[in-house]
Amino acid sequence: MKKISGGVCAPAGFRANGVHCGIRKNKTKRDLSLIVSEKRASAACVYTTNLVKGAPIIVTKSHVADGYAQAIVCNSGNANTCNADGVEIAEAMCALVEKNTGIAASDVVVASTGVIGQPLSVEPMAEGMPALAAGLSEENGNLAAQGIMTTDTVAKEIAFSFDLGGAECHIGAIGKGVGMINPNMATMLIFVTTDAAISPAMLQKALSADVKDTFNMVSVDGDTSTNDMVCVLANGLAGNPEITETGKDFNAFRRALNKVTTYLCRCIAKDGEGATKLLECKVTGAKTKNAAKLVAKSVIKSSLFKAAMFGADANWGRVLCAVGYSGADVDVSKVDVSFKSRFGRIDVCKNGSGIEFSEEEAKKVLGADEIQILIELNDKSGKATAWGCDLTYDYVKINGDYRT
Amino acid sequence: MKKISGGVCAPAGFRANGVHCGIRKNKTKRDLSLIVSEKRASAACVYTTNLVKGAPIIVTKSHVADGYAQAIVCNSGNANTCNADGVEIAEAMCALVEKNTGIAASDVVVASTGVIGQPLSVEPMAEGMPALAAGLSEENGNLAAQGIMTTDTVAKEIAFSFDLGGAECHIGAIGKGVGMINPNMATMLIFVTTDAAISPAMLQKALSADVKDTFNMVSVDGDTSTNDMVCVLANGLAGNPEITETGKDFNAFRRALNKVTTYLCRCIAKDGEGATKLLECKVTGAKTKNAAKLVAKSVIKSSLFKAAMFGADANWGRVLCAVGYSGADVDVSKVDVSFKSRFGRIDVCKNGSGIEFSEEEAKKVLGADEIQILIELNDKSGKATAWGCDLTYDYVKINGDYRT
Repeated sequence: MKKISGGVCAPAGFRANGVHCGIRKNKTKRDLSLIVSEKRASAACVYTTNLVKGAPIIVTKSHVADGYAQAIVCNSGNANTCNADGVEIAEAMCALVEKNTGIAASDVVVASTGVIGQPLSVEPMAEGMPALAAGLSEENGNLAAQGIMTTDTVAKEIAFSFDLGGAECHIGAIGKGVGMINPNMATMLIFVTTDAAISPAMLQKALSADVKDTFNMVSVDGDTSTNDMVCVLANGLAGNPEITETGKDFNAFRRALNKVTTYLCRCIAKDGEGATKLLECKVTGAKTKNAAKLVAKSVIKSSLFKAAMFGADANWGRVLCAVGYSGADVDVSKVDVSFKSRFGRIDVCKNGSGIEFSEEEAKKVLGADEIQILIELNDKSGKATAWGCDLTYDYVKINGDYRT
Repeated sequence: MKKISGGVCAPAGFRANGVHCGIRKNKTKRDLSLIVSEKRASAACVYTTNLVKGAPIIVTKSHVADGYAQAIVCNSGNANTCNADGVEIAEAMCALVEKNTGIAASDVVVASTGVIGQPLSVEPMAEGMPALAAGLSEENGNLAAQGIMTTDTVAKEIAFSFDLGGAECHIGAIGKGVGMINPNMATMLIFVTTDAAISPAMLQKALSADVKDTFNMVSVDGDTSTNDMVCVLANGLAGNPEITETGKDFNAFRRALNKVTTYLCRCIAKDGEGATKLLECKVTGAKTKNAAKLVAKSVIKSSLFKAAMFGADANWGRVLCAVGYSGADVDVSKVDVSFKSRFGRIDVCKNGSGIEFSEEEAKKVLGADEIQILIELNDKSGKATAWGCDLTYDYVKINGDYRT
């Protein structure tokens, strides 16, 4: 597997673009993105489990019900959620895509991200769509990544090439966070493209399995969004024998998908609202995989622990506390905890009790911008990883007055 | 029921004191408290559900196993948790009480609060105990309230008088928060005294029922502490006919207990680490009481909503979002939301969609230091209240470097 450039346009037959159409006030911010495939593609999606769902999710569900789609349109600056006319607006966005690209509205995946409960006018999108469509290009994947950003500070994209049944395939993706991030069975906005040939059913199977270990293990602030969506389009232009069952090729595809999704999980956690540090919690030796997941996610969600990491304070008692309330079946008298970064590794807790360590050394280790929290439960072989970020003054600042 | 002064010393036969013995470095902070009853009292406790439990909880459980106790000793500045010799230290604290008061160590409730995983030396407590015991007085309830404070900014105490079977009874309490507060089946440190006569079994029944609607509905930061404990001592000196079964007197006692506990819930939420505002979420019209509880607690725990309240931003979309992921069975298209404070009331969401409102008026309402979030689910008659606080720069500051 090789990292390549191009993001969502790296796979054959995909073009993209992103423009400023006027939903966001700041004219330097793109707010409307479009990704199109040369041919109809197998489509798989997972969505938020929040009962309050953005209107675009309702529309997308019906559009991909047949297992296929050909375009993805997404605006930022407004979530189109809790609006009485939300579904109508989302359908209108798809109709605009049809009008400007010829792709049937019923083959369009639609998504929105931004403030909840503000009316969304279709007018700026109607005005911006011709230029958006005209500018579709294999070079503009990054502009599409920019167009879906909200409080993100960096555009998030990635691509890999990989071999499938002798054919060179490609997979690319863009994604956005970075607040209201606590995906549960679904996730933030992630759009993945691939030229691999894979049936809709197998694509959905691969995606549904993948998110359990990737996006569902990310938390920025514990709030599960109303608009979470991961969508994969696979147009088959790589020419590999279509994947229609589990086996070697399916596993190779899953590995490629997982490379992309894991990369984006880390990006989203690291760019979490106000964050200065990526926290990666690796739990090993759990009774079951599920127990390991509960523990890992509990630790990276703890406000107290997140604030301690902001202060580079090796307050491992807060790690133990979060292990204890995680709901996992854990023998707390056997827990070991270490912190690790590119500046070194320091053991701070052994068998559930504190051990002597150099505070100076700990400060150094915790001064890095990526920190691993290693939790060995010394029981069986269950393991899991979760990603989060520190809790900072800027998180409060960003969210103290997000709307205005 | 009448509010009276005296806190834990308001009921007949209780004396208390608090001193600085040297666990905390700051000599102006009291760090050791003692409450004693003239006679053995019915005792009821509830504890944290965190698997990591402070050593004092283990010792207290064994001391109150017979349903009786006569004294409560508590230090602040160190949680005596995750220490290999924790139980030994907690037992030593009880032995010191016996030595200095004559009350059997096995009748002592012991509690600790502060940093987790730091060795706790018994020496400063051995030095401080004689003065602590000598200073026990009916006037010093407030000093005991001071001695259990950690990041609390105000001492928390309350007392009421009430009638029970013709006898004038009294109930008083002290409590402390204000970080790692997300009680679950138990709570922070709360010590309640009463001179009402009530059997240990009925006292436990009253307490266990009460915490479900009071302390278990409070969250400051979503972290369930390792040392949570609520303890009630009832010494019977008021002379009422002992309560040994449910009925009129039991209900009257429950109402008195609930007055005390509800007051302390509000105190603890309002004094939450870094908080500038008390948030009281009142949910009505839910399918069940449990659904109402899930919704109320989900809203007051949302980091995004808490930050918006800090910024006096009427971002009701975050309320809807938290309703949606609460896990409660809710018809989101029927939800109404209003904000209310001493500056007025403003309706912001009707039937799950936004309604026009004056941003200026909303800023005014949300500028108060106590804010009610009113959520009407328009379904059945389930209702619940939860208490929390805003998320502020100071929360991050306090917890970025709590240990040092």
